[in-house]
Amino acid sequence: MVDKLKVSLLGSTGMVGQKMVKILANHPYLELVKVSASPNKVGKRYQDSVKWIETGDIPENIRNLPVVSTSYEDHKDVDVVLSALPNDIAEGAELELVKNGKIVISNASPYRMDPDVPLINPEVNWEHLELLKAQQQRKGWKGLLIKNPNCTAAILSMPIKPLLEIATKSKILITTLQSVSGAGYNGLSFMAMDGNVIPYIKGEEDKIAKELTKLNGKVINQKLEPANLDVTATTIRVPIKVGHMGVINLITDQKVSIEEIKYALKNFKSLPQQKRLPTAPKTPLIVREEEDRPQPMIDVIAENGMAVSVGRVRYENNVLRLVILGDNLIRGAAGITVLTVELMKELGYI
Amino acid sequence: MVDKLKVSLLGSTGMVGQKMVKILANHPYLELVKVSASPNKVGKRYQDSVKWIETGDIPENIRNLPVVSTSYEDHKDVDVVLSALPNDIAEGAELELVKNGKIVISNASPYRMDPDVPLINPEVNWEHLELLKAQQQRKGWKGLLIKNPNCTAAILSMPIKPLLEIATKSKILITTLQSVSGAGYNGLSFMAMDGNVIPYIKGEEDKIAKELTKLNGKVINQKLEPANLDVTATTIRVPIKVGHMGVINLITDQKVSIEEIKYALKNFKSLPQQKRLPTAPKTPLIVREEEDRPQPMIDVIAENGMAVSVGRVRYENNVLRLVILGDNLIRGAAGITVLTVELMKELGYI
Amino acid sequence: MVDKLKVSLLGSTGMVGQKMVKILANHPYLELVKVSASPNKVGKRYQDSVKWIETGDIPENIRNLPVVSTSYEDHKDVDVVLSALPNDIAEGAELELVKNGKIVISNASPYRMDPDVPLINPEVNWEHLELLKAQQQRKGWKGLLIKNPNCTAAILSMPIKPLLEIATKSKILITTLQSVSGAGYNGLSFMAMDGNVIPYIKGEEDKIAKELTKLNGKVINQKLEPANLDVTATTIRVPIKVGHMGVINLITDQKVSIEEIKYALKNFKSLPQQKRLPTAPKTPLIVREEEDRPQPMIDVIAENGMAVSVGRVRYENNVLRLVILGDNLIRGAAGITVLTVELMKELGYI
Amino acid sequence: MVDKLKVSLLGSTGMVGQKMVKILANHPYLELVKVSASPNKVGKRYQDSVKWIETGDIPENIRNLPVVSTSYEDHKDVDVVLSALPNDIAEGAELELVKNGKIVISNASPYRMDPDVPLINPEVNWEHLELLKAQQQRKGWKGLLIKNPNCTAAILSMPIKPLLEIATKSKILITTLQSVSGAGYNGLSFMAMDGNVIPYIKGEEDKIAKELTKLNGKVINQKLEPANLDVTATTIRVPIKVGHMGVINLITDQKVSIEEIKYALKNFKSLPQQKRLPTAPKTPLIVREEEDRPQPMIDVIAENGMAVSVGRVRYENNVLRLVILGDNLIRGAAGITVLTVELMKELGYI
Repeated sequence: MVDKLKVSLLGSTGMVGQKMVKILANHPYLELVKVSASPNKVGKRYQDSVKWIETGDIPENIRNLPVVSTSYEDHKDVDVVLSALPNDIAEGAELELVKNGKIVISNASPYRMDPDVPLINPEVNWEHLELLKAQQQRKGWKGLLIKNPNCTAAILSMPIKPLLEIATKSKILITTLQSVSGAGYNGLSFMAMDGNVIPYIKGEEDKIAKELTKLNGKVINQKLEPANLDVTATTIRVPIKVGHMGVINLITDQKVSIEEIKYALKNFKSLPQQKRLPTAPKTPLIVREEEDRPQPMIDVIAENGMAVSVGRVRYENNVLRLVILGDNLIRGAAGITVLTVELMKELGYI
Repeated sequence: MVDKLKVSLLGSTGMVGQKMVKILANHPYLELVKVSASPNKVGKRYQDSVKWIETGDIPENIRNLPVVSTSYEDHKDVDVVLSALPNDIAEGAELELVKNGKIVISNASPYRMDPDVPLINPEVNWEHLELLKAQQQRKGWKGLLIKNPNCTAAILSMPIKPLLEIATKSKILITTLQSVSGAGYNGLSFMAMDGNVIPYIKGEEDKIAKELTKLNGKVINQKLEPANLDVTATTIRVPIKVGHMGVINLITDQKVSIEEIKYALKNFKSLPQQKRLPTAPKTPLIVREEEDRPQPMIDVIAENGMAVSVGRVRYENNVLRLVILGDNLIRGAAGITVLTVELMKELGYI
Repeated sequence: MVDKLKVSLLGSTGMVGQKMVKILANHPYLELVKVSASPNKVGKRYQDSVKWIETGDIPENIRNLPVVSTSYEDHKDVDVVLSALPNDIAEGAELELVKNGKIVISNASPYRMDPDVPLINPEVNWEHLELLKAQQQRKGWKGLLIKNPNCTAAILSMPIKPLLEIATKSKILITTLQSVSGAGYNGLSFMAMDGNVIPYIKGEEDKIAKELTKLNGKVINQKLEPANLDVTATTIRVPIKVGHMGVINLITDQKVSIEEIKYALKNFKSLPQQKRLPTAPKTPLIVREEEDRPQPMIDVIAENGMAVSVGRVRYENNVLRLVILGDNLIRGAAGITVLTVELMKELGYI
Repeated sequence: MVDKLKVSLLGSTGMVGQKMVKILANHPYLELVKVSASPNKVGKRYQDSVKWIETGDIPENIRNLPVVSTSYEDHKDVDVVLSALPNDIAEGAELELVKNGKIVISNASPYRMDPDVPLINPEVNWEHLELLKAQQQRKGWKGLLIKNPNCTAAILSMPIKPLLEIATKSKILITTLQSVSGAGYNGLSFMAMDGNVIPYIKGEEDKIAKELTKLNGKVINQKLEPANLDVTATTIRVPIKVGHMGVINLITDQKVSIEEIKYALKNFKSLPQQKRLPTAPKTPLIVREEEDRPQPMIDVIAENGMAVSVGRVRYENNVLRLVILGDNLIRGAAGITVLTVELMKELGYI
């Protein structure tokens, strides 16, 4: 393709940033032209500023890129800015860029629940991009800000979308078993986590409940109406590196059929599949029939980490139960952001 | 004490058997006089027939005991037989002893759901020993058979007992995170389990639901009436060695107060505490106020592994939620059996 | 390529067998046409007889192959038989095939030290295939038997080859840190190995010393003269899944230069590189300059698992020291066997 | 005992500090009366300033101690100061106390190699306390400074002491497999270390070589003459929590007998054993005859973590080989310091 979109990346040396670098290095029409990192790295080459932890070497076409700052001057000539910044410094950096006219698609948490900012999981709620039409006016920004959900909400919302179309009135109880990468590369020490389970992840349960409500909402007259969901989540850290698992208990008075549920899950497709977006999984939800699946060791890489695996689908005592698994770094972070760029280009926002 | 009770132990070389050996080696009034193991070990000394995996050396007073068979001849002069036999060979061996007049207290699964066999977790349902009064007549046995519950049911039933006294009409949804020792020492390979989570444990979910119903039942006219419980469990294997965690969601229309719940949990005492049985924990339920507890690494050994730790007690959206943790090898197996012997002696059954 | 070589695989459902299936599924001129497994699986389709543990799905072109036995009848129409059989059943099965005229290339240990059977690590001693010219006559076989070394010897022999060309008279002391997959998928339980180090691997130290002597030997007049090596190895199991590390201490009176050593390692090439065999690594020895490399997490997949990484090259007190790392399942097993087929085809043995 | 020695502890909230708290809480004649921690904790109670990670609760008699600073004013009324301070802040704090007249026994690295400061591993070189007689004069200090060795040197020096008495002229090659706790509680992240081996520990190899030379030296005329040792160590981090293993290769022309070596190891006793110091292990070196021992999971707690286990003792090709294991937090840090206090009291230095 002659005209690639020029992309810059904030937070390029972190764990999620490195995943994005890998995805972008071989992209058919996105070209990573600027990598940004913390001030002490600015001016170095990418390969000299990163502690590379991905398997394989740093992609040829990226390793010699000079590291730039997050300020507008350094990004003014790119088409879109992706952000894998840490939550605590994201707000300032991203707003500066948006106010100056850039389109920023971000993984960081600030502004996720802002009613004027679309929180996008492409297969689940691509129509929410509609909010962008009023964003500039309401916010007084020259650019655009788009957020991706928390990694766990991103994964959970995939199977919940078709489930809610069948079991419309439900009480949803979720227990998650989340991998250590979700806390960041240095977030948990080996001494604290090896051979241990920690039944607490700061802020996570609240994020899941709120973001699921927004993700399943509707945009009416360019306003977001959140869904009326009854969600309670208990989030637990388990000693594995990658992959977030969720046990979903959906209590519903409507009688549901297991076969109908599995059919709906297996056949769940959305705009990214219809438009064959490059990063979209062909089968977003993979239903496993084996009694002991999904397992992180085997299933987390399904569809290059972009699919969510679903297993142990059962219904008894008015409870629909299933176990789901997704890659928190790909589906939950790096991949969802790239897919959002593709979606926005497809729909003419970029 | 001059007159110690003479005890023999079936399955003495396994993981749970070794735990029992350690507990019995220093017991104030129980004396382990016979150890039994598989036929190829019979005749050897204990220390030559066991692959000792407990920390510390084999207790002095046990290591030279000769290994005997499981047949009646080898146990006829002991006061009580404890069994840590594997499920698949327990039934035959235990029945032979019971039919010949021995009192057998067993951890193995066969006969757990038999209405004439008490399934005992001492703090929860010591009164069920009442069933023994009719057991010999109904079964035609000369001895007595007493069962302890599945390790997960043993742990879960501790906090559920006082909870059900407050929230009497409830739907209970449980997700467990169970350690690898629950599958036996060689039950899961390092390759299959390291860095992995397996959302399936054969037969476990059904056992939990059924055994909780029996444990919370009532004995009326020497007949057991199971409790009317609505329990659904999802059981998951996580890569830690010891300790079973449970996330309990109790859905109830009755408005409950967190303070009342915590008070009831903290002050839960039963006959083993009142009678100060040697193996009984002083505080059976330890309520943790820290936001990130209980953790297996820190809490599993509370009260020498006999207490259950409870944390993250919360109530919202009609859901009472808590996270519990117990030692599956001690509270869930070796310790509960020894405590049952003490209980039976206290009540005059031995 | 029009004429692919027809290949069959013994032990196709094991851990190494599955790796071979993956490598062969996309091979430019080898076609896997028969998969063999234990008698109870014969007649089933491959996908119904294997507990697939590789990431990704079973290759399209393999999953429906019918499983055959190891007997000659089932392999008579293939060009070459690869064997990933367990050591205890390999000898009988492989000999039957060789006596009946098949070419068998095997990973299993029997016959590795037989003076008439070449023990081949292609980059190290491809010339040893010369032994095949006399093998049929001396053994009275109609076919040919070729062995690959033990996984640890395969990895260690790669850097030792160029080292011995510089430091010819040396005492070599090796300590290995070997991953759990080296013991087979079910070889070590999670309970025994997690959080533990076991300083013993049955038979391994002896194999390493002997096989290194054979691998570094010379074929003169179609007879193997083993090298005169002074090797002592201590082998230790560490709790990681894949990758064998070795600490090599080479004590030598010859003064050596670090730069000369590194140069020799980096530029080590052999026939597989010169002939560009499809499975050969471009750079067989990758010298890492970072002070904390090689690490299994990052380096084991170098060159698709076919290269050996070398780090921490130092020389002091007459001791040349280095740390090496290789993939025990690829370089040490599955890959080396496929590379041996390619080598034999290149040299006209097949 | 009526007159307990009053002890204060610097660095009391760290991992090693907590171990010392546990040891001191039940000591027959040492009484921990002051606990010191970083400035932001001063004034709080101990239990409110520590993230307790030891199993079991904080000892009754310690939990309410107020946290003090490291300055002299806060320690002037104690008999001896123990230090578990981090290396980077130890020097200043310890020197202030020593200059003002306190006896400080420290685990931290500064001053370890100072010729006037005894580096004490009690069983190995208790006579080096002799250096204290000249320390005040040479240094101009009013107090005394005593150092304990690096954890790995502490463990290795135990078996090396009797070995050097038999094989006096040797080249010693060591490979260590060190646990993660050696890097501090937060020293290595789960993401970096789980399923990984890192063949590098900053500064460790040099420390081992130098400290072994000092520990095996002789004090002549109140001057230390280091031993003439030829030691080369390669140090490797492995993913276990506690326990440092070492593979010792001792190359010697003297013919040695395995039985003589084992006898010397088994019967190694020193002043701490003769004087029955409370923290001294009865058997400092435990020789294991099983082929797969020592293992961290089983052996690290031998003699409450104060003994070093030795296994796989072999001699061939002029190489005496053995595998040793010790508890890096107890024998290598907390226990050795307490034992040094006991030693100094026994010899009249306190």
